[in-house]
Amino acid sequence: MSERGRFISLEGGEGAGKSTQVKALADALRAQGLDVVVTREPGGSEGAEKIREMLLTGDEGRWSPQAEALLFAAARSDHVDKVIRPAILSGKWVLSDRFVDSSLAYQGGAGELGIEAVRAINAFGISDWFPDRTLVLALAEGGARARVRDNEVSDRIGGRPEGYHQKVDLAFRLIAAEEPQRVRIIDASGNAEEVTKRLLAALSDLLP
Amino acid sequence: MSERGRFISLEGGEGAGKSTQVKALADALRAQGLDVVVTREPGGSEGAEKIREMLLTGDEGRWSPQAEALLFAAARSDHVDKVIRPAILSGKWVLSDRFVDSSLAYQGGAGELGIEAVRAINAFGISDWFPDRTLVLALAEGGARARVRDNEVSDRIGGRPEGYHQKVDLAFRLIAAEEPQRVRIIDASGNAEEVTKRLLAALSDLLP
Repeated sequence: MSERGRFISLEGGEGAGKSTQVKALADALRAQGLDVVVTREPGGSEGAEKIREMLLTGDEGRWSPQAEALLFAAARSDHVDKVIRPAILSGKWVLSDRFVDSSLAYQGGAGELGIEAVRAINAFGISDWFPDRTLVLALAEGGARARVRDNEVSDRIGGRPEGYHQKVDLAFRLIAAEEPQRVRIIDASGNAEEVTKRLLAALSDLLP
Repeated sequence: MSERGRFISLEGGEGAGKSTQVKALADALRAQGLDVVVTREPGGSEGAEKIREMLLTGDEGRWSPQAEALLFAAARSDHVDKVIRPAILSGKWVLSDRFVDSSLAYQGGAGELGIEAVRAINAFGISDWFPDRTLVLALAEGGARARVRDNEVSDRIGGRPEGYHQKVDLAFRLIAAEEPQRVRIIDASGNAEEVTKRLLAALSDLLP
């Protein structure tokens, strides 16, 4: 029997360099001899992709916030069931680009549903398979949005007004304050290598 | 402004004559001058039908029980949002062939999830729009299954073993015991006219 792997998620608002860091962190963990599965949300499994497709079709107001949150939770449930849990139980490390905390921050904290309610339906869906560690990439106020304007194409969520992104940022910090063992805020300023080092340092107690 | 209408759901295991009684009860309520919208689950709205379609494709084990329950709850959320709530707020009565208590009894009580957990995710989805009254058609032990064998084509759920249907029946009775004001067990024995009279009697306090 192989030892149980670890489940790590990366989070962060728009423009914190998350995609770059997911790749860099996966490489760094592989360099330590770990078998790493990289996955992402929304989506990540066949069933979750089908749900995502359904969410993306139609008008923005097509689904109520409650229905949307339940659909995301159902997709996440399938993602855990078909991809994440089997990998971890077979000894692999799983690195997910976004996971449950995106729902908590965007739909719960910045939306109208509240963090607690969104956490409850998700805890049900994932049977309490929360990540062993969640790393939230965060820039000081103003920094993240400036980087978005420079480097990234804004999607529907990215194009929302500044007040929305401030709420997302506050929600991530609140979640980290509530679950300090699981969720860590990582300074995303400076060059990419420095940020990757900070991410690795925040995983040091989990490394073999 | 028209007065708020009433929201009634009919429930019952296989073979309790539910479909017949939905039609008969709608006719009886219309005869009293009420504007009645008849709907049903699973499905009942465009979004809910899309989710239902997704649930019905693929193998029986395609979705975990948790994912399935979340998808049903999302579908129900859309059903309330797009069909039930608007009708009731415009003064109509809504009669739904199955609603939340089917999930509580089948997935919660007879399945592995538990009634409380399934109630919680559904209360979130429907924003506490539980029916004003839920009428559960029930036959004495043995009676319902005998009628299924005689008169109805069993679907996937209908074809499950006898022990499963006993659990569903017990779950409905438990829900009625927990919520006696909302949920009433109605004797489904005897001829259809007699049963319809019992249903109407159980709504007498809600009628204008």
